[in-house]
Amino acid sequence: MKPQSIDFKNVTLLDGFWRTRQSDNAAITIYSIYEKFKETGRFEAAKLGWRKGEANEPHIFWDSDIAKWIEAASYIIQKNNDPTLISRCDELIDIIVSKQEDSGYYNIYFQTCEPHARFTRRTDHELYCAGHLMEAAVAYYEATNKDKFLKAMCRYADYIEQAFVTDKSSSFQTPGHEEIELALLKLYRCTNEPRYLALAKHFIDARGTSDTDFYETVTTHYAQDHLPVREQTTAEGHAVRACYLYTAMADLANECKDDSLMDACKAIFQNIIEKRMYITGGIGSTYYGEAFTIDYDLPNETAYAESCAAIALIFFAQRMLDAQTDAVYADTIERVLYNGFLSSISLDAKAFFYKNPLAIVPEFAHRYPSSKDQGCFPETKRLEVFSCSCCPPNISRLLAILGGYIFAKNDDTPLIHQYISSKTDDIEMISGFPNDGSVTVRVNGPKTVGLRIPGWCIRYTVRQNGCDANGIVQNGYLYLSCSGETTIDICFDMPVVFMESNPNVTQNAGKICCTRGPLVYCAEQIDNTAPLRTVYVSEESAHTAVLTKNESFSAYTITVDAFKKEAADTLYAPAGSRFHKTTLTLIPYYGFANRQACEMMVWLNRK
Amino acid sequence: MKPQSIDFKNVTLLDGFWRTRQSDNAAITIYSIYEKFKETGRFEAAKLGWRKGEANEPHIFWDSDIAKWIEAASYIIQKNNDPTLISRCDELIDIIVSKQEDSGYYNIYFQTCEPHARFTRRTDHELYCAGHLMEAAVAYYEATNKDKFLKAMCRYADYIEQAFVTDKSSSFQTPGHEEIELALLKLYRCTNEPRYLALAKHFIDARGTSDTDFYETVTTHYAQDHLPVREQTTAEGHAVRACYLYTAMADLANECKDDSLMDACKAIFQNIIEKRMYITGGIGSTYYGEAFTIDYDLPNETAYAESCAAIALIFFAQRMLDAQTDAVYADTIERVLYNGFLSSISLDAKAFFYKNPLAIVPEFAHRYPSSKDQGCFPETKRLEVFSCSCCPPNISRLLAILGGYIFAKNDDTPLIHQYISSKTDDIEMISGFPNDGSVTVRVNGPKTVGLRIPGWCIRYTVRQNGCDANGIVQNGYLYLSCSGETTIDICFDMPVVFMESNPNVTQNAGKICCTRGPLVYCAEQIDNTAPLRTVYVSEESAHTAVLTKNESFSAYTITVDAFKKEAADTLYAPAGSRFHKTTLTLIPYYGFANRQACEMMVWLNRK
Repeated sequence: MKPQSIDFKNVTLLDGFWRTRQSDNAAITIYSIYEKFKETGRFEAAKLGWRKGEANEPHIFWDSDIAKWIEAASYIIQKNNDPTLISRCDELIDIIVSKQEDSGYYNIYFQTCEPHARFTRRTDHELYCAGHLMEAAVAYYEATNKDKFLKAMCRYADYIEQAFVTDKSSSFQTPGHEEIELALLKLYRCTNEPRYLALAKHFIDARGTSDTDFYETVTTHYAQDHLPVREQTTAEGHAVRACYLYTAMADLANECKDDSLMDACKAIFQNIIEKRMYITGGIGSTYYGEAFTIDYDLPNETAYAESCAAIALIFFAQRMLDAQTDAVYADTIERVLYNGFLSSISLDAKAFFYKNPLAIVPEFAHRYPSSKDQGCFPETKRLEVFSCSCCPPNISRLLAILGGYIFAKNDDTPLIHQYISSKTDDIEMISGFPNDGSVTVRVNGPKTVGLRIPGWCIRYTVRQNGCDANGIVQNGYLYLSCSGETTIDICFDMPVVFMESNPNVTQNAGKICCTRGPLVYCAEQIDNTAPLRTVYVSEESAHTAVLTKNESFSAYTITVDAFKKEAADTLYAPAGSRFHKTTLTLIPYYGFANRQACEMMVWLNRK
Repeated sequence: MKPQSIDFKNVTLLDGFWRTRQSDNAAITIYSIYEKFKETGRFEAAKLGWRKGEANEPHIFWDSDIAKWIEAASYIIQKNNDPTLISRCDELIDIIVSKQEDSGYYNIYFQTCEPHARFTRRTDHELYCAGHLMEAAVAYYEATNKDKFLKAMCRYADYIEQAFVTDKSSSFQTPGHEEIELALLKLYRCTNEPRYLALAKHFIDARGTSDTDFYETVTTHYAQDHLPVREQTTAEGHAVRACYLYTAMADLANECKDDSLMDACKAIFQNIIEKRMYITGGIGSTYYGEAFTIDYDLPNETAYAESCAAIALIFFAQRMLDAQTDAVYADTIERVLYNGFLSSISLDAKAFFYKNPLAIVPEFAHRYPSSKDQGCFPETKRLEVFSCSCCPPNISRLLAILGGYIFAKNDDTPLIHQYISSKTDDIEMISGFPNDGSVTVRVNGPKTVGLRIPGWCIRYTVRQNGCDANGIVQNGYLYLSCSGETTIDICFDMPVVFMESNPNVTQNAGKICCTRGPLVYCAEQIDNTAPLRTVYVSEESAHTAVLTKNESFSAYTITVDAFKKEAADTLYAPAGSRFHKTTLTLIPYYGFANRQACEMMVWLNRK
């Protein structure tokens, strides 16, 4: 038997760090995105009524924005009966279904702007949009049992099968932007229609065999076309496309017990976490192609680390975790959730980052002579909507299904992947994460419980019904035998720890990063007097670090002893050690740029 | 009286470091460039015979390539009677003059490709090409006394005066790429025609008042149009354009005793050397716009540091030195000459860098998915010709006139700016630079001699006719009283010194750079076993540095104690101090990439 994640439908978050965020998502975020999408003409566009010369010309990806909004709303509806969200979804679904062709085809851009160009341009997100519509249809059906949208999207899937498999009438064989593969797998599981599984497999198997890479190739491979998927061993190209593909590959491998496909997934996952991932869990080192680059290339100021890519990595990791209970996958999900994912949404739950840099030098915002070239420097402020606004509804849907990442079952053994206060059928968990490492788990009945020992944890204590407990650790999970009602108290030590990068990461040579438990910390200028670039810290300062509870971040800030380098008047001077003692205050990375745009650093100069 | 540089015509280099380079220039470089320019159709294009559809379509800047080649050849001819060079020059000049319009106009691109677009597009280098032709004409006249080319270019200058001043028939007021201003000042001094001085002044005064910046502006200002020149205080935009302008400004200020213009030059020069110059003397921090960016922004791998910009900074510094005897200007010339300029030509004198990076990570050459985006990473190998091949003949002409940077006279006081073995009227100098700091100067007659104390020099000894000597130091020059035949022996201590950057340079935080005398050193992978990025050095290692004479570099290599950081298997690990002792071998920066493309670092990790 393989482990199986417990679906978010069967998990309820309890008061705590993430419950607050999930509530804000349901009360604020989903509505805020709706208003912004409405203002920008996205919903109106779904009626296919736009005509040349009018404002709000439809973009090739607007279907996916609408679909992800419906999907996020559906997940919220699943847990909270919100009549407003239901009626808004129904309204949008009615529009889409009424404008869907008899053939099953529906695409805002192509039906409105280029009706004769259907399925001729691989770059233009048609199958990507279709995939998001399918995911939304499945989510809405599962939330409400209304099957109108689901049936409509099945007709669309049938039409796609006709064009890409039966008739081969399309001008390309595989989507330029992956997404439909994972969506078809969901559609298959929802409908039990094996043709959808076959179609997903078709798109996955055809990649790298028929279409050629449409982006000029140096060594990276924008749309993962460089090799047949089973031969791929490194994470390449556009990071969101890549991880949506890898997610579908892992899902298909699980579904079909396809070991060669799973081996490719394992190699790629390992390549990501050992060579191509920021300490925040962000992926995609460059603005150019929003892409993975090469091993150990992790620039901080120009980190792309797209919010959607963080989410896609969580998807991929979870599919891997459903294949094998290895803490490395859940560790990665934790790293992304608390850092590179959570940074993407503002503390007031209304504004978003598309890119999540690991350093901001405000002057760099005016470094280059043209705004085009300047694009490689991320925004220093979260925005409520972007012209390419893929991230906001993606963030909302992940927050809504967060419960689905906490528990799994392997046969009768419940597994605890994430320490988030929550309950499911026979388990209730109260967690102090991320502020302290105390977790209480109440289980009823099962013989064995597996608890993940986080990768960052060096020491922990565990008690069972008040007594010292012993268990067996396997692949990063502590297995405890329980009988009847059992209370497990586990406490993971959470000292302040400065981390360093592998020395092959040139950008982080001579730098260290402050962490505590799952949280990566950063310094912001607003909390510190000396310019951050002139401040040096030693890993020894962890021993005297002072923690201060900060309500607005719902987490501790950390103050450490530090050294300010004295500035000479000249640009170059003989190296010396002119340092003054100072302190440096650090905040959780996810909280950066919530007060003002200012200098920010994750990787600090090491003394 | 102001100091006046002694022209290269009156200075002869003696055996030593630079004489070898100057000989190679006359024997190898000038011929090698000729062949490459011929192969690529540049000389043929001067006949204006190219027709649409044929190979080698003329570029807008080809006139300047030809002109700079003639100019460099003229300087060589001035010192060595080389009949081949003379006949090649004559041949090219005959072509140009025969194809010059009766009006005086001559431009390969516009006469050939767009005859009706003359003086309509500021961006298209017309006046830049004209300026280079004028410089060449002056140089050839001074070398040979043949005035055909000079007269032709005077007619061209007259025509430009007509179009831009008298009739105002041009569509723009000032050149997009400065150059003609400094050329007109040379033409004025050669012909004594005050209208050329007035025209130079016209172009300088009009800048920033009439034309608007043609490159989209963020904060930098591509063609120095952001303010009238007298109000400019920072070095902005395209670094070559900028320094050609500043050179002309300083020249005009000297010529016209224009204090407000000289004040602007001083402010700009200070801004460059205190905030915007690499330790190699390279300028222009970015590929985007080949431009200055912002204060303290000096990225190493993507340094633009164009060879032409290094040369232009030498021009600017010399004009400043002719206004005031302050060692800061000669120090800058020395820094550029031995490092960022000399790196631009290969040791075999045939191949060139356009950009001169301060670090090479070979993997970065394949970092981005498209070669367009990849452009910000410099080549890792010198090339014999580029499509935009402005640098090679510029390098050649500077090597040919190197003698002009060594001496000056202030009233009767000879000044020694550069320690290069050479002689002029009444001075002979034998210098050990850059390998040792011993200099012997023999002077005859004058009362006082001024010798620059290099900015890097902490201690020196000086003897006059074998006895300890005392002098007065003013603005970095040591003034010694001499009578009759005097031998001055001055020895500048040249220890190995590790330098650090101003802490505001984020890119160099936690890094140091090895120097010795005027030379900046770098590490190349070929001389070292551990990957350079994993090696750390302390400034203390300077005390035990081992110098080894290396014939191919004509200079010492330096070996220092160092520490290799042990690589963990993981991407991130708790910071620790796992170092192994090792050594690091360093070569003069100018010699990098002469053996193979490999990892290179100027700024080393500091332990």
